[in-house]
Amino acid sequence: MEKTKVGIVGLGNVGSGVARLLTEQSARMTRHAGQPLELAKAVVRDLDKPRDVTLGPNVLTNDLKEITEDPEIRVVAQLIGGTEAARQVMLELLESGKDIVTANKALLAEHGPELFDRARALNRSIAFEASVCGGIPIITNIGQCLSANQITSLSGILNGTSNFIVSRMEQEGADYPAAVAEAQRLGFAEADPTMDVDGTDAAQKLSILAHLAFGARVDWHEIPRIGIDTLDAADLRYARELGYRVKLLAIAKLNGELELHVSPTLVRAGRPLAEVREAYNAVTVVGDAVGNVFFHGLGAGQMPTASAVVSDLIDTAVGRTRITFRTLELWSGRPPRVTLGDHAQARGRYYLRFTIRDSPGVLGDIAGVLGGYDISIASVIQHEPEVQGEDELVPLVIMTHLASEGAAQSAIEEIDGRDYTLQPSVRMRVLD
Amino acid sequence: MEKTKVGIVGLGNVGSGVARLLTEQSARMTRHAGQPLELAKAVVRDLDKPRDVTLGPNVLTNDLKEITEDPEIRVVAQLIGGTEAARQVMLELLESGKDIVTANKALLAEHGPELFDRARALNRSIAFEASVCGGIPIITNIGQCLSANQITSLSGILNGTSNFIVSRMEQEGADYPAAVAEAQRLGFAEADPTMDVDGTDAAQKLSILAHLAFGARVDWHEIPRIGIDTLDAADLRYARELGYRVKLLAIAKLNGELELHVSPTLVRAGRPLAEVREAYNAVTVVGDAVGNVFFHGLGAGQMPTASAVVSDLIDTAVGRTRITFRTLELWSGRPPRVTLGDHAQARGRYYLRFTIRDSPGVLGDIAGVLGGYDISIASVIQHEPEVQGEDELVPLVIMTHLASEGAAQSAIEEIDGRDYTLQPSVRMRVLD
Repeated sequence: MEKTKVGIVGLGNVGSGVARLLTEQSARMTRHAGQPLELAKAVVRDLDKPRDVTLGPNVLTNDLKEITEDPEIRVVAQLIGGTEAARQVMLELLESGKDIVTANKALLAEHGPELFDRARALNRSIAFEASVCGGIPIITNIGQCLSANQITSLSGILNGTSNFIVSRMEQEGADYPAAVAEAQRLGFAEADPTMDVDGTDAAQKLSILAHLAFGARVDWHEIPRIGIDTLDAADLRYARELGYRVKLLAIAKLNGELELHVSPTLVRAGRPLAEVREAYNAVTVVGDAVGNVFFHGLGAGQMPTASAVVSDLIDTAVGRTRITFRTLELWSGRPPRVTLGDHAQARGRYYLRFTIRDSPGVLGDIAGVLGGYDISIASVIQHEPEVQGEDELVPLVIMTHLASEGAAQSAIEEIDGRDYTLQPSVRMRVLD
Repeated sequence: MEKTKVGIVGLGNVGSGVARLLTEQSARMTRHAGQPLELAKAVVRDLDKPRDVTLGPNVLTNDLKEITEDPEIRVVAQLIGGTEAARQVMLELLESGKDIVTANKALLAEHGPELFDRARALNRSIAFEASVCGGIPIITNIGQCLSANQITSLSGILNGTSNFIVSRMEQEGADYPAAVAEAQRLGFAEADPTMDVDGTDAAQKLSILAHLAFGARVDWHEIPRIGIDTLDAADLRYARELGYRVKLLAIAKLNGELELHVSPTLVRAGRPLAEVREAYNAVTVVGDAVGNVFFHGLGAGQMPTASAVVSDLIDTAVGRTRITFRTLELWSGRPPRVTLGDHAQARGRYYLRFTIRDSPGVLGDIAGVLGGYDISIASVIQHEPEVQGEDELVPLVIMTHLASEGAAQSAIEEIDGRDYTLQPSVRMRVLD
């Protein structure tokens, strides 16, 4: 029987998971691929490091050349992190004629155009299901299963770390630092969680999905983003009172132009996205033919990510990836099909919280400022003062009707300049 | 540019939707297929019937030969309903060398082995994404995206009509006949809804999914099934009191052998499957690597189903289907990988409702019968009599711990034989 020899570069957490599936579960690979997938070489930096997978003799090596110079190895899972070394390895693998599978989303967000150009020029393919949402096969679903549709919007919880932290803040009333510490203790957040909690990771994933789904060519740096690192537990409580949950959402919405942003967003309780707990990811895709389709699964972790890598290895071995890659718009020379709208013109509903001195006329003044920017008020909650002894410090929560991002921003700035405003105001989008 | 000529057989609701996508949205097909998909012929019975799609000249015909004898038409969407005529058309199309896309689940459930055998012998392919769950791409997700996994369980709301009816009964307290009438008025149920509400439709879909996901070779007639047509609104109320929703679930669970059944099932509120409303479908798939993945979308309707058909047409035109079909276990000559367990041995938790005469010792006797079958009680609700003037007629609701299907059945039969039992008892599974 014909077989496909596979290489792995990087035997970290995900790499070990992939190696385990290939070696311990070879029967299912053979069944789906119609031929064995043989793990021929695994390239690591340190040959002596203990691994949680048992490999055959001569599989482990610290020399990339054992892959690049072996013409029998056709497909390689490139699983090293970071961007610079990974980019170099990707290019060497492509030049040596390998088809590549990768889980490295940061690498694609930074160097996607160069790598995809090179792959196309060399008639090779890059598969990247594992790079966005780990265990949710969102890349194949958008690029293949929903191909009859014009996607009109996409709303996702793309960062499991943020969702875990916000869930804990909501469920246990924990404040942000305590929730981060718990996430770190349980392995859901890295020692330096910056890229996860400041919206960078979600924006990078959104840039890939927006390109796939809408033909947008957008650099992730251009995507307006707000992380969860400034969230106040009080706002989660008020949101809950109003019947909402707060989620770090990545949004892409087609309305002539494309609106893209990442920010903590109020989602009405009971809607599928509102009920996504712990470190799960989820994506709602709306297509003009199919309507709403909702996907929910583990967005990270060793085996969910390895599952995506291995299905890509099978797709590449049998030839499906080659076909898909040929017509893939992602980082192709084709012109963008949509332009990014001016974020200030994007319209949405807002949750606003002002912290004010309780004195006559303040609510009227705030309503007046909002009205001046054409922002009308849908509901108001003014609570009793929160801190005894400082009883003039009062939280005022306002839900608006539709308003433009720019107007909301300007109104907030004007109100923050008033004498009666005692703390910077809080503003969050509300999901339509 | 090369192009693929496509035929359609049957221009009903779904057929017209497919024709509209092919003719009105040709740019997106070209983009995803790398070549135009041209609708060359559409075969109908009645040429004069008004259609909600405008076709080019000479496209409409009532002669299947205009497709079978045109070697330029490579791919055909076979969209006529029923089983006998559809089977004949499928065979003629295969013999004439066409690759086929179909949405006809009943046809596959009845004649899948013969049709797939023939397709394999003739080196042709059959794509059938639209046959299960319409807009949810569950076939591709199980067969391709999750191919690195051993699927360990699958739980689905596979029949939108039933879900609509049960949702209405729950939300509005309507009884079964009233909810069916409303579903018919709104177009969610056919004039004769038998196949939807008695579990047949869900069992047919489950037989296809079980074959794909587990390598089970099961005739849908063998799947134990209970429909929603015997549901009592009272049980939905009690379930809600206990913190559950009732859903018509199709279950496949691997535990050495495979457990398959379709029945109204209690699902804890807040779990994704519990929150599926109206005519939506949903499926939870558990894989040993990926964990839980949940899919939610419209399971029927013109355009969601057409979306699935057209993505299959694209996959077939570009060659992905050919590759997938080659290794597909569904109705292949390969031996089954799993056998169906004895349903009486299947274990689950149960919701039981007894309607009893309120007299001393009855609860004790029921507990004794259950205990005799090794069924232990998790909770009990005994309500005040429901009907004034018949105050001895009392509903007694019991939730059990794990018990076998056979034991639960026998215990119920024994209790139903007691003098104090005034109406047949109700038994429903509880999702683990």
